[in-house]
Amino acid sequence: MNIGIDIMGGDFAPKEAIEGVLWFLKENRNTSTTSNSPHFLLFGIEDVAVPYLQLLEGWEDSYTFIPCGSFIKMHEHPTKALKEKPDSSISIGYSYLKESKIDAFIGAGNTGAMLVGALYSVKAIEGVSRPTIASPLPKLKGGYNFILDVGANSDCKPEHLLQFAIVGAKYAQHVLKIEKPRVALLNLGAEEGKGNLLAMASYNLMKEQNIFDFVGNIEGRDILSDKMDVMVCDGFTGNIVLKFAEGFHLALTEDRKIQDDFLDQLNYENYGGTPILGINAPVIIGHGISNAKAFYYQILGAISMVNSEIIDILKEQFRPKINAEQ
Amino acid sequence: MNIGIDIMGGDFAPKEAIEGVLWFLKENRNTSTTSNSPHFLLFGIEDVAVPYLQLLEGWEDSYTFIPCGSFIKMHEHPTKALKEKPDSSISIGYSYLKESKIDAFIGAGNTGAMLVGALYSVKAIEGVSRPTIASPLPKLKGGYNFILDVGANSDCKPEHLLQFAIVGAKYAQHVLKIEKPRVALLNLGAEEGKGNLLAMASYNLMKEQNIFDFVGNIEGRDILSDKMDVMVCDGFTGNIVLKFAEGFHLALTEDRKIQDDFLDQLNYENYGGTPILGINAPVIIGHGISNAKAFYYQILGAISMVNSEIIDILKEQFRPKINAEQ
Repeated sequence: MNIGIDIMGGDFAPKEAIEGVLWFLKENRNTSTTSNSPHFLLFGIEDVAVPYLQLLEGWEDSYTFIPCGSFIKMHEHPTKALKEKPDSSISIGYSYLKESKIDAFIGAGNTGAMLVGALYSVKAIEGVSRPTIASPLPKLKGGYNFILDVGANSDCKPEHLLQFAIVGAKYAQHVLKIEKPRVALLNLGAEEGKGNLLAMASYNLMKEQNIFDFVGNIEGRDILSDKMDVMVCDGFTGNIVLKFAEGFHLALTEDRKIQDDFLDQLNYENYGGTPILGINAPVIIGHGISNAKAFYYQILGAISMVNSEIIDILKEQFRPKINAEQ
Repeated sequence: MNIGIDIMGGDFAPKEAIEGVLWFLKENRNTSTTSNSPHFLLFGIEDVAVPYLQLLEGWEDSYTFIPCGSFIKMHEHPTKALKEKPDSSISIGYSYLKESKIDAFIGAGNTGAMLVGALYSVKAIEGVSRPTIASPLPKLKGGYNFILDVGANSDCKPEHLLQFAIVGAKYAQHVLKIEKPRVALLNLGAEEGKGNLLAMASYNLMKEQNIFDFVGNIEGRDILSDKMDVMVCDGFTGNIVLKFAEGFHLALTEDRKIQDDFLDQLNYENYGGTPILGINAPVIIGHGISNAKAFYYQILGAISMVNSEIIDILKEQFRPKINAEQ
């Protein structure tokens, strides 16, 4: 298995990405055999990366450095930057992914460029109109809910939310190994018939299908509950919920200095990244402030996605159209 | 000043409402004179209320009990219930408000019925197309932000969000006494040009006006910050944010047993209720689980609204249309 990483992505590039790889290699020293141990392809600018690559001394067999001519900065316009910088670490990474020279791609850089690059290179799975990004949110009783979309699609139609639900349920089942994931629609009331126009129409679509276990609406106060495993909403709402959780976590842990195991679960480091789902290859987007631990978890996530064969499962699910018989 | 209270509203009716009145009367025993002390009109069903009215023994001059024939239960359909129960405590309360026999109305019962009742009786201020409900959310550094809409309008157009902003800014200035309230648009990114279609168009409208101080977009992670005093969003998003905050607060204080002054500020009891803004009279909706303390704060909120003359200020602002010259 070959895992590609844009080591130029993130606020602490390339050091933390490389340290994340090192962390993984050390952790897996004893459990891996040569045959199942992943090989890393590190995409970066040579001058910048070389001093940090010394951190991987002794692990030369486990990685290959792929020199790139540029990188896309955090606030560049995604489409424009990808067009103007075909030699960037994100562009070259995606060209490797498209050609199957890597099995998964990880990047903590410009989120828009990671997303647009995925759509341009490996492209959406046939039948998926809106690939989505998804994020875990901790449950109070332990484990994680999985919320999607969290920002790739700010304006949605009911059929998009239905697709998010299918993609999320399959991911929860096959990658997160939840036997029968419960899918809920994030809404402003629990009763059927509540909601804005989008939520009401989406509810009806979800109620009528038999691909996943639809448990109905959940309200904002249920977001941390165990009433579901997958939460579906438009990307505008999901983005605000996710960032509110993040802001809340920081306020309580950093400003209020509260130490609590549950709050720790909200730390982005512990889940690393958010997968792009509904595209033809495993891609994980890391948080801009990803540190070594976050990259380590992003690597674990990418390996799980590859091993689960989730891409083939989704291709099958959406071929030739949404298959209502499962 | 006459304050009307639906004492049949809320999960603990009528006891907590009456105890809230008592709390207020005791607190204000020394500071009030007969002339400025409010008189309470308590709307309720006689058989149910009388035993609890004994709590107000000795305060007979401060209240009048208004017997009603029925009340609207929590999950009744608002419009249907108001039509079928003209003798309900909410219906009679609103008829008193419409006839100016009371200066403000408070109710912690069926939120939909409180909202629809307001629109049917005292009606929207001329020029306000969408009255809105608003709620305080604590700032980490102290004080409160004011978020609207939190559920009255689940599908919105940009001009509705602009009206929420105007109404929220005027409320913050005149009722909350914030000299120059900063208004922000809740969005999925901080930069101009970010957002769903609604947010992008609303941003442009807010940027062009000079009625309030528009500070641009805020993201979910800024919700507890002091970057603004008023946060504007559609009612779907606002409802989810508000209930998520509520659920978060409960999870941390009740399940995790965390004690923290900032978290305490999230307790609904401390701010009591949410005003309906953009209608021709002061109305405050209480949380369904309102206790005496919450009713006490709802009473304070109603008095502040009356004293601030916010209704006249809003009437002037929206007459004959949005006045761009302030």
